[in-house]
Amino acid sequence: MRVDASDLLERVRTQKPVVHHLTNWVTTYDCANVVKVFGASPVMAHAMEEVADMAGIASALVLNIGTLTSDFVDAMKLAAKSANRKDIPVVLDACGAGATKFRDEKCFEILDEVKIDIIKGNASEIARIAGEDVKTKGVDATEVEKDLVQVASGLARRRECTVVVTGPEDIVTDGKRAVLVKNGHPMMASVVGTGCMAASVIGTFAAAEKDLVSASVAGLICYEIAAEMAARFSKGPGTFKLMLFDAVFNLDAESVNRMQKIEVIDN
Amino acid sequence: MRVDASDLLERVRTQKPVVHHLTNWVTTYDCANVVKVFGASPVMAHAMEEVADMAGIASALVLNIGTLTSDFVDAMKLAAKSANRKDIPVVLDACGAGATKFRDEKCFEILDEVKIDIIKGNASEIARIAGEDVKTKGVDATEVEKDLVQVASGLARRRECTVVVTGPEDIVTDGKRAVLVKNGHPMMASVVGTGCMAASVIGTFAAAEKDLVSASVAGLICYEIAAEMAARFSKGPGTFKLMLFDAVFNLDAESVNRMQKIEVIDN
Amino acid sequence: MRVDASDLLERVRTQKPVVHHLTNWVTTYDCANVVKVFGASPVMAHAMEEVADMAGIASALVLNIGTLTSDFVDAMKLAAKSANRKDIPVVLDACGAGATKFRDEKCFEILDEVKIDIIKGNASEIARIAGEDVKTKGVDATEVEKDLVQVASGLARRRECTVVVTGPEDIVTDGKRAVLVKNGHPMMASVVGTGCMAASVIGTFAAAEKDLVSASVAGLICYEIAAEMAARFSKGPGTFKLMLFDAVFNLDAESVNRMQKIEVIDN
Repeated sequence: MRVDASDLLERVRTQKPVVHHLTNWVTTYDCANVVKVFGASPVMAHAMEEVADMAGIASALVLNIGTLTSDFVDAMKLAAKSANRKDIPVVLDACGAGATKFRDEKCFEILDEVKIDIIKGNASEIARIAGEDVKTKGVDATEVEKDLVQVASGLARRRECTVVVTGPEDIVTDGKRAVLVKNGHPMMASVVGTGCMAASVIGTFAAAEKDLVSASVAGLICYEIAAEMAARFSKGPGTFKLMLFDAVFNLDAESVNRMQKIEVIDN
Repeated sequence: MRVDASDLLERVRTQKPVVHHLTNWVTTYDCANVVKVFGASPVMAHAMEEVADMAGIASALVLNIGTLTSDFVDAMKLAAKSANRKDIPVVLDACGAGATKFRDEKCFEILDEVKIDIIKGNASEIARIAGEDVKTKGVDATEVEKDLVQVASGLARRRECTVVVTGPEDIVTDGKRAVLVKNGHPMMASVVGTGCMAASVIGTFAAAEKDLVSASVAGLICYEIAAEMAARFSKGPGTFKLMLFDAVFNLDAESVNRMQKIEVIDN
Repeated sequence: MRVDASDLLERVRTQKPVVHHLTNWVTTYDCANVVKVFGASPVMAHAMEEVADMAGIASALVLNIGTLTSDFVDAMKLAAKSANRKDIPVVLDACGAGATKFRDEKCFEILDEVKIDIIKGNASEIARIAGEDVKTKGVDATEVEKDLVQVASGLARRRECTVVVTGPEDIVTDGKRAVLVKNGHPMMASVVGTGCMAASVIGTFAAAEKDLVSASVAGLICYEIAAEMAARFSKGPGTFKLMLFDAVFNLDAESVNRMQKIEVIDN
């Protein structure tokens, strides 16, 4: 497969898709802002009375269970059903899956009751959703023994969706194809919000490209190349995150083409 | 009319008014922080049990429907009634008006049940509240055909309030007078939060000046001159927003007097 | 007493404790991020169904009443009871205590119903909790006439906890010992979030050190030395806060040892 990330970046900037979020209250600003600096249009709305309508005017929906409550998950399901009817992609960031029984139950409830098109998480979150036995330490990734590509592919096939595992090397798979994205920078793991933003970026690119593996790969490439650029000039995680927004905003096709590092895996 | 923005800036810094907010969860930090860096004292409280008391110790109240729920709007109304009784100015940021039926209904509910002193929105939000037929694309402004000054003035007269339409040129009108504020920078439209912060700034200045047209104009002038300064040194929307806080904090009377660009319109 | 702040900093970075928060929605990102840049692992969860479990996998719990509601306080109490059972330290940031009757009532409700190990506030908040008659102006500190060390010590003895009073000189006391931390920078008072972050830092250090006076002092020393470094290079409160995250991340033992300024007071 071939992913033209710079072309897709251009389409995002031209189409300016509306990306509806029901996300984590900790990183909601970052999620909105990363969509904005990519040139698209974020909207964050969670009232039961309007989530279906809002999803109805959006081109993608991003859900994140980071600071979930029962009511908030109900609103997520309502929004997702509206998105499903309209056939726009729905991304689920399984933030913190495995940390508590409640979180796991709600996560599976969402996966069982609505159509999720892209599941995104770190290694331990994805392993938990795939039914592997791992212990999550808060919301940070823990080492996972199993072959992650196999775990992710199996989950993608069983749930009939695309699975994205973020980490030093990201895995993107729909159960048939698998791609490793090797861009990014270790500083991303030292600042809150980079994981949540990745889900928003994937949603934004999925709004502009039907092939969700290509969309996810292209989004991660662009976002993580921007992170590499930001890391070059920043002096720590504080300035890094701000310069990441600058770098996304200023990202050009030439850099995307030159700097991208992906590997297509025969499954 | 004559607006002495630098004098009003000085009064804000000297009086340090408490500005109570029930605002958007996405930009709540930015709203609080912009008030703080202007030298005033933000307070964000939304519990039904305390909003009336909190408004009672404040000198202005800022409401924003960006991430509204029914309960949150109920708390807004309670706070606004307390503010009305105390006769402190109430600003409503009609964030996202027009995006959903629920949002419109709640917005009109607020406008009908409490006294709003300043309505602030972008072109499409204000047009919607004025009853013009426009389509909002998420929370970003769309082109509006009608003569905006006429629309805003009509709304101001009908609702007996001051109306602020933000955009490349901001309109401030109470239905009798109308002023264009021509400061600002395009980068403001590329970062989340600048619109919400404008409402907080207007509330802060309205806490220190009874003439709400003058207060709104002066607040916008100071805020947008700071944006011009920030844009000069920043390399993108990330660093821009941080430098905007720096520039507000460091803003001096001489710059305000020299850089302000307003036009008074005969209505 | 002797506080080895650089040793404790090293322990935080090595142990990477999970610090569970039920905090202020305005500064929740900053609270999470400051824990992260110190090398520890923040988790923010507030659903009644999971707070007890989440506190159960944490090494410290931080509560902040800045944007409290009744439901949120109920979740705080549930989390604190779980923390008490597990015997991990619980920090309460009495953000805005004294501003409204509701806030005071809820604050005392928490103090009476669960075991709080560290109470943290500015001068007027602590005075209010100690039963002194002061007027809070929103969430900013007001001048307090009484001898603050006496007030704090008395509160610490009565509530059998450690009390931290933040200000130009911070007071840390358990009613027997009292320490002044004289690090920090005036810019901290010009940006929203520095107070809330102090509570998170204290919680993080308390997760790694049983002596809560030492933990609080060490946390404040490290955090405020980082602030001094950030202030040296920043041009205002916007860039200051970002550089504070950088400085915390890059903080070295040599600087901590050289720059710390504390005074042990005979009580």
